[in-house]
Amino acid sequence: MFIMKPLQKITFLFAGLLFIGTGLAFGQKKNSTHAHKSTAIDSAQWRKDNYIVNRDSAFANPYFALQKLTGGNRRFTESHSIYPRQNSALIKKLASGQSPFATIVGCSDSRVSAEILFDQGFGDLFIVRTAGQVMAEASYGTLEYGYLALKTKLIVVLGHTNCGAVEAAVKRPENPPGHIVSLINAIKPAALAAKKMPGNVLDNAIRLNVINQVNHLRQLEPVLSKNYEEGKLLIVGAIYDLGTGKVTFLKETLEHLPATAFARHDITGK
Amino acid sequence: MFIMKPLQKITFLFAGLLFIGTGLAFGQKKNSTHAHKSTAIDSAQWRKDNYIVNRDSAFANPYFALQKLTGGNRRFTESHSIYPRQNSALIKKLASGQSPFATIVGCSDSRVSAEILFDQGFGDLFIVRTAGQVMAEASYGTLEYGYLALKTKLIVVLGHTNCGAVEAAVKRPENPPGHIVSLINAIKPAALAAKKMPGNVLDNAIRLNVINQVNHLRQLEPVLSKNYEEGKLLIVGAIYDLGTGKVTFLKETLEHLPATAFARHDITGK
Amino acid sequence: MFIMKPLQKITFLFAGLLFIGTGLAFGQKKNSTHAHKSTAIDSAQWRKDNYIVNRDSAFANPYFALQKLTGGNRRFTESHSIYPRQNSALIKKLASGQSPFATIVGCSDSRVSAEILFDQGFGDLFIVRTAGQVMAEASYGTLEYGYLALKTKLIVVLGHTNCGAVEAAVKRPENPPGHIVSLINAIKPAALAAKKMPGNVLDNAIRLNVINQVNHLRQLEPVLSKNYEEGKLLIVGAIYDLGTGKVTFLKETLEHLPATAFARHDITGK
Amino acid sequence: MFIMKPLQKITFLFAGLLFIGTGLAFGQKKNSTHAHKSTAIDSAQWRKDNYIVNRDSAFANPYFALQKLTGGNRRFTESHSIYPRQNSALIKKLASGQSPFATIVGCSDSRVSAEILFDQGFGDLFIVRTAGQVMAEASYGTLEYGYLALKTKLIVVLGHTNCGAVEAAVKRPENPPGHIVSLINAIKPAALAAKKMPGNVLDNAIRLNVINQVNHLRQLEPVLSKNYEEGKLLIVGAIYDLGTGKVTFLKETLEHLPATAFARHDITGK
Repeated sequence: MFIMKPLQKITFLFAGLLFIGTGLAFGQKKNSTHAHKSTAIDSAQWRKDNYIVNRDSAFANPYFALQKLTGGNRRFTESHSIYPRQNSALIKKLASGQSPFATIVGCSDSRVSAEILFDQGFGDLFIVRTAGQVMAEASYGTLEYGYLALKTKLIVVLGHTNCGAVEAAVKRPENPPGHIVSLINAIKPAALAAKKMPGNVLDNAIRLNVINQVNHLRQLEPVLSKNYEEGKLLIVGAIYDLGTGKVTFLKETLEHLPATAFARHDITGK
Repeated sequence: MFIMKPLQKITFLFAGLLFIGTGLAFGQKKNSTHAHKSTAIDSAQWRKDNYIVNRDSAFANPYFALQKLTGGNRRFTESHSIYPRQNSALIKKLASGQSPFATIVGCSDSRVSAEILFDQGFGDLFIVRTAGQVMAEASYGTLEYGYLALKTKLIVVLGHTNCGAVEAAVKRPENPPGHIVSLINAIKPAALAAKKMPGNVLDNAIRLNVINQVNHLRQLEPVLSKNYEEGKLLIVGAIYDLGTGKVTFLKETLEHLPATAFARHDITGK
Repeated sequence: MFIMKPLQKITFLFAGLLFIGTGLAFGQKKNSTHAHKSTAIDSAQWRKDNYIVNRDSAFANPYFALQKLTGGNRRFTESHSIYPRQNSALIKKLASGQSPFATIVGCSDSRVSAEILFDQGFGDLFIVRTAGQVMAEASYGTLEYGYLALKTKLIVVLGHTNCGAVEAAVKRPENPPGHIVSLINAIKPAALAAKKMPGNVLDNAIRLNVINQVNHLRQLEPVLSKNYEEGKLLIVGAIYDLGTGKVTFLKETLEHLPATAFARHDITGK
Repeated sequence: MFIMKPLQKITFLFAGLLFIGTGLAFGQKKNSTHAHKSTAIDSAQWRKDNYIVNRDSAFANPYFALQKLTGGNRRFTESHSIYPRQNSALIKKLASGQSPFATIVGCSDSRVSAEILFDQGFGDLFIVRTAGQVMAEASYGTLEYGYLALKTKLIVVLGHTNCGAVEAAVKRPENPPGHIVSLINAIKPAALAAKKMPGNVLDNAIRLNVINQVNHLRQLEPVLSKNYEEGKLLIVGAIYDLGTGKVTFLKETLEHLPATAFARHDITGK
């Protein structure tokens, strides 16, 4: 079990407020380039400049894992990805086993590679991808394997703007070919609810679809539900903005979480 | 439709022989670092040194797509990945639409990120991932969407060495928790066949599982089967070696392909 | 298209009020035995005594189909089943094709044979059965085949009291073996909602599960939803009482139905 | 555990040879009607004339269960079904629990009601039905529930002649609507193999589909495979002939069975 000293807790909380609460995107931080190049790699200053969260901490505590993802996405949107953990020595070392610090349930879309947009490396992210993040038994078994065998304590359902699968569920074509209708039916509840809401139907459907999927996983018997309810596993939702590169965690999935033994900060950024 | 001039064909064939037929892996090309740094980026020499295949060609012809993947994996194993197409300007531009040149059906394992090991960027790879590449309706619909809506003409089923899901299917635990048994049953035919073969059971099961999945997709009604049989869609299998970083395309899935209108070279590397 | 003359409509309406609105069960109609035996088989009186609804009418109009089922269940609960359409001549004749007048989605339970409890014969009922009426793609394809290929215009989701699958979803065992958890997860939303309601949890979960399944089928793209919304296909829910043998159609699924061209009566029995 | 005395064994073996080995169908046994009516119901002679197998024996031993099914189908084809166990007193009694002696995985076709064609009653047959007997997780969970919770030791996969779902898999329509393609893909391996065989393609595809499904269930982890291999659960296949009403058990599924502790006779009828 990961144990934080008091000082770490304060730093952690502060970092949470700083990282998650801000809405940076491509080009917004004009001066970042200089700062990233002028410090020695892996120095304390470099780590701070690059929003580095310790990997062991992220593996041990899903709230740190969330922070690590947020930091990586910040690097990405600021155009100074560091492409961590991709050298051949590490890759060889990892051949004997993996300890991903987060599981990402994402879309098959070629523009939403979690490794790239969270700027993470080999062995970091356990990943399930289908169009619209639609899941069935194979995905469920994969997620359970991630928690039980790999001890990954954070699951992020990651939707994205302008999702073609959600758009299909909103449009409901008369005779969708092949198995595409399975995607449409899985997303349809979100699409129907979005049509009754004010605002952009597609955007709302995308967000509701992620929320539905998060709730479904939180209730999925017998592994995820139990461990989520006991505070041992964190399951949240997020949306990736294709235009800005920014990942926004959905506050609907960050609030009213079960009690947990993990050191925990206000991940809603308020 | 993509049309190649005679000279291109020859170059293409040559490149195929060179790239796919060789078995490079981490550290084998001692002098590569120098060469990659000394030439101007995007010069003809740089493109040759970095095994660059034109993106439009790769999108238009699945055999070029295959070559583009092979070239990217070569960069990766030689430790000089170029992290293409990840700048913010391109990402913004891609927000309006995607044209991935290949679809990868891979494992959820945190060590097999197709974007990283094929050194490809945003908008390049349409990706389905579950443990052991196990597929059902959601995956099928995704693959059909990739072919019909996105016009992606190459599907690669990408297994990897030391796969935990295949290992579970070989071991067949008495009471697998949750939905993990769905993964085991899907992979079991490969595991049973591997037990009857000489050699390493897990390695054989991993390879047979990929071959089974390729064959299943080639027969999948109504979209993939028809287009595969008509030579409009290429579906092949490959194994990623966790230790060396190298992707080996399986010759069992490269031979006896249907007639095609695409300019085609000997992708078996013979 | 089936067209009813005015008189038929009135009779039909009356029959509906009589049959569906009453709650007969085993042993409640003491004098029925005599009436059923004393009239010539297939005479007008016999047909009336046995609640016979014309088969062609039932096939053409789902409201007649519903009435035919109700009449059959009434025979069954009154212990004078006639075992219709089971003679060898008819069975031989049916070998060339089927025209079932209703589709029943029922439970696998050995005590809920739709043919027996609705007292119907060969070629009458197209049937899908799994524990707890849990459906996925195979069931959906079957139901669509029933509507499109066989022209069956009534789908009844038939739950039953004391259902073991629903009970499992209510109890949520810690480590359900095999694939039983797939049943539990499918039924779980009904079980959770039932726990928040007054009354017997299992009874409520059984009823809510049927209502959820009816609603799911009514929204199932692309075949059932469209035809349901256009009033061409009727989808309703019912509960079979293991103790009394009586089928009660759920009023939640009989009200607020889409406009239809079928001659239609108040199937809620009010 | 069921224990047979020597005499029972001999009778059982004899009965097996008599019942399963003969190929009776509608109208072949001209004199049967008289015999069935002239003896007192439930007398020894009546039981013999009606091929009655003791229910407790059938529940305890899957070979007796098989014999009980065969006897019931014989009554059916001889047009003297007895409609057993359908009186209201028994039905009320059964409300508290079920002990089906066999599980039938059959087609949704309205002409293949297992209760009718095997002439069995309430509480006798646990039933899964989808078009073409296509199964996925919900069906698997149901079958496992049947074995584990209900102790049903015989599973029969029951196909039938002239099956529309198998026909669709043979014809492979270009754009099957809705989810029907899921049925087609599940049956397609049998259809492809049948096309390479001499004889009627549809008949062969129907038979091969049943054999494939039997083999799949025999290998299904973790419940069915283990208990099948240990001889505790019998899984066989059969075809129902729509024209004659006769069920023929497939010898491919009756031979080379695992060793079993059950008293066992030559169910191949040889």
